Amino acid sequence: MSTTTGQVIRCKAAVAWEAGKPLVIEQVEVAPPQKMEVRIKILFTSLCHTDVYFWEAKGQNPVFPRILGHEAGGVVESVGEGVTDLQPGDHVLPVFTGECKECAHCKSEESNMCDLLRINTDRGVMLHDQKSRFSINGKPIFHFVGTSTFSEYTVVHVGCLAKINPLAPLDKVCVLSCGISTGLGATLNVAKPKKGSSVAVFGLGAVGLAAAEGARIAGASRIIGVDLNANRFELAKKFGVTEFVNPKDYKKPVQEVIAEMTNGGVDRSVECTGHIDAMISAFECVHDGWGVAVLVGVPHKDAVFKTGPMNLLNERTLKGTFFGNYKPRSDIPSVVEKYMNKELELEKFITHEVPFSEINKAFDLMLSGEGLRCIIRMDA
Amino acid sequence: MSTTTGQVIRCKAAVAWEAGKPLVIEQVEVAPPQKMEVRIKILFTSLCHTDVYFWEAKGQNPVFPRILGHEAGGVVESVGEGVTDLQPGDHVLPVFTGECKECAHCKSEESNMCDLLRINTDRGVMLHDQKSRFSINGKPIFHFVGTSTFSEYTVVHVGCLAKINPLAPLDKVCVLSCGISTGLGATLNVAKPKKGSSVAVFGLGAVGLAAAEGARIAGASRIIGVDLNANRFELAKKFGVTEFVNPKDYKKPVQEVIAEMTNGGVDRSVECTGHIDAMISAFECVHDGWGVAVLVGVPHKDAVFKTGPMNLLNERTLKGTFFGNYKPRSDIPSVVEKYMNKELELEKFITHEVPFSEINKAFDLMLSGEGLRCIIRMDA
Ligand SMILES: NC(=O)c1ccc[n+]([C@@H]2O[C@H](COP(=O)([O-])OP(=O)(O)OC[C@H]3O[C@@H](n4cnc5c(N)ncnc54)[C@H](O)[C@@H]3O)[C@@H](O)[C@H]2O)c1
Ligand SMILES: NC(=O)c1ccc[n+]([C@@H]2O[C@H](COP(=O)([O-])OP(=O)(O)OC[C@H]3O[C@@H](n4cnc5c(N)ncnc54)[C@H](O)[C@@H]3O)[C@@H](O)[C@H]2O)c1
Ligand SMILES: [Zn+2]
Ligand SMILES: [Zn+2]
Ligand SMILES: [Zn+2]
Ligand SMILES: [Zn+2]
Repeated sequence: MSTTTGQVIRCKAAVAWEAGKPLVIEQVEVAPPQKMEVRIKILFTSLCHTDVYFWEAKGQNPVFPRILGHEAGGVVESVGEGVTDLQPGDHVLPVFTGECKECAHCKSEESNMCDLLRINTDRGVMLHDQKSRFSINGKPIFHFVGTSTFSEYTVVHVGCLAKINPLAPLDKVCVLSCGISTGLGATLNVAKPKKGSSVAVFGLGAVGLAAAEGARIAGASRIIGVDLNANRFELAKKFGVTEFVNPKDYKKPVQEVIAEMTNGGVDRSVECTGHIDAMISAFECVHDGWGVAVLVGVPHKDAVFKTGPMNLLNERTLKGTFFGNYKPRSDIPSVVEKYMNKELELEKFITHEVPFSEINKAFDLMLSGEGLRCIIRMDA
Repeated sequence: MSTTTGQVIRCKAAVAWEAGKPLVIEQVEVAPPQKMEVRIKILFTSLCHTDVYFWEAKGQNPVFPRILGHEAGGVVESVGEGVTDLQPGDHVLPVFTGECKECAHCKSEESNMCDLLRINTDRGVMLHDQKSRFSINGKPIFHFVGTSTFSEYTVVHVGCLAKINPLAPLDKVCVLSCGISTGLGATLNVAKPKKGSSVAVFGLGAVGLAAAEGARIAGASRIIGVDLNANRFELAKKFGVTEFVNPKDYKKPVQEVIAEMTNGGVDRSVECTGHIDAMISAFECVHDGWGVAVLVGVPHKDAVFKTGPMNLLNERTLKGTFFGNYKPRSDIPSVVEKYMNKELELEKFITHEVPFSEINKAFDLMLSGEGLRCIIRMDA
């Protein structure tokens, strides 16, 4: 048992005090884990666009002060009452959506939307007592999607932790904690392209490129990447993207451009931008009769999806997914094994690295559309 | 070979001269079938709501004068050049959507939206020469969805004819030509409810009740019927509908009522009303994580489907279908056999019968929401 067990831990965390203002590294107090909770030491975290949306709080409800971060790898420091699956020293990936293993969703083969632990972006407290485990001089700092990984230590519900192979390098597999699993699973578990089919991917960030990687693994013969940022195209070649479309290069809607390129539409599309116009295009660009579109991007809270009902009647399918339909505890350990067996390459998603003290640089890189994932080293 | 082969046939047809005006029984001339066409003698036809929409032409493009009708049973009178699958005397069901057996859709297991012969509601002529086979004193009368069954004789593309068991009573199986196959297939082929699941059916006309019948056959344990017409509820009990919801009885949206009845939503829903508000409700009433909604109703041409993208992200699936995803030539003969083997009851869908001379009564019955299918006897 570590000497910190049962004690408040004082450590560094990057606090978002206000919407859109640079994070500030503060000394915070992290309370011990309560019933069914686990306190973990974060070693590496990375930045996903979802963090940026809730930090900007333009299209999302503002909840401040808050400790953001949800893509990370860490080691269990101590466990709360009732936790039997994990013990100090276990290597874990925290996940923004959990798996209680008891509810109808956890028991269903089709869903990973656990009734108890599904993503809740407005809640800033722990489920057990509706309180935060973070404070500064007694003033609570809110949690983010149950993970808050921009802290040296954080407290997470045991249902939101995937126990992984301790030999897996956490500075690489941390990206499986959100973005890469999300994109990969959106294609492999939800869109399910057949061998030889055509797939359009909207948004060539890490999530979209992981979706493209899924299409490549599934044997798609054409992978059409769509992005407004032309810089993404060079990078995307490494991920099996065979053709590029920049909607800015055309006067007509991009769904028409794609339909012309593909004799009526792609077999599958995966939307990874979070923009409602891309969601609509991603749906309308799939072939009638058999096309399937999968939405992944997190939309503006007031966004409305609009389409002519005939687009549906014409036998298109529209779906959405969180975390690529993976169940975090049951499925993620084996996705980590895919990396260990070299079936899945993660290095190519990691384009930058910064020490924790320079975490705001990771935000700048995301906002300027440079690179894919920026790893933030907590010990530096 | 019949004496009429190669000749123009003079016969009676019910002509829609103007939007919303009673049909007029006229003497028409029916030209011989051209390449890949078949002339059939219609014995029984029935009225589907789709005929009414195009007759009213409120939410659809007006194409007049026109011979409506697409749900029918008949016998081949003569065949045009190139037709080898059918010969005079064969019993057939004409279908508004065809099967060329050559295109990507016909070769796909997933689609019945034949590139050549899919439904086209604006076209009033035959594909071969872009001309009508119907005329009155040399003036052409337009076709409707390639079938125009409100005529003693009609000309149909061979790809739009299902050759069926000649022992099957045409006054019963004619309803498989559109509505009943559509509803049945929407559930069995597209929504695919599991045994023990809950299914909501929006619109309890013949199409919706056939969807409910499909749910019963699939072993659904709860079948919730939704209709604005309370008279439908008594009738619906015969079709396995276990619970009823009339949206007019509630202040809150019907999707919320259903979610409360079912602990979060139904497993499947099938929309058979053609009204956009019902389409949206049918989507939003399915359970997150695994719910599937299937749209069947023919919408107003300017209708827009709107929903919050989070309803999709929460792992709901939305699909649409024509003709229940059945391929008319490949699949319908075996649906007819289901009736012959008593696996499927058709009698309960047939609530009225009128002679051809009183065809306008069938329209009145549909508009007043009385009964389900009205069979129109051509020989009377
Ligand atoms: N559903 C989930 O479980 C889940 C999980 C993780 C991330 N996400 C979401 O996935 C999306 C992508 O995340 P990311 O980290 O890869 O972000 P990112 O910013 O790295 O990549 C997004 C890309 O989309 C492009 N883009 C933006 N608008 C576009 C448009 N209209 N058309 C075409 N391209 C457009 C951008 O140029 C950018 O390259 C975000 O919305 C994020 O919130 C969802
Ligand atoms: N997709 C296809 O292949 C296909 C084939 C045949 C028919 N259709 C369509 O299916 C629909 C049903 O056809 P039908 O012949 O059974 O018609 P119908 O008129 O007999 O039945 C429709 C029922 O829907 C009810 N209804 C209308 N608005 C409603 C609402 N907002 N909420 C709940 N109930 C509502 C009506 O009261 C009626 O009972 C029509 O839109 C028709 O055009 C589609
Ligand atoms: Zn993320
Ligand atoms: Zn659960
Ligand atoms: Zn019909
Ligand atoms: Zn075809």
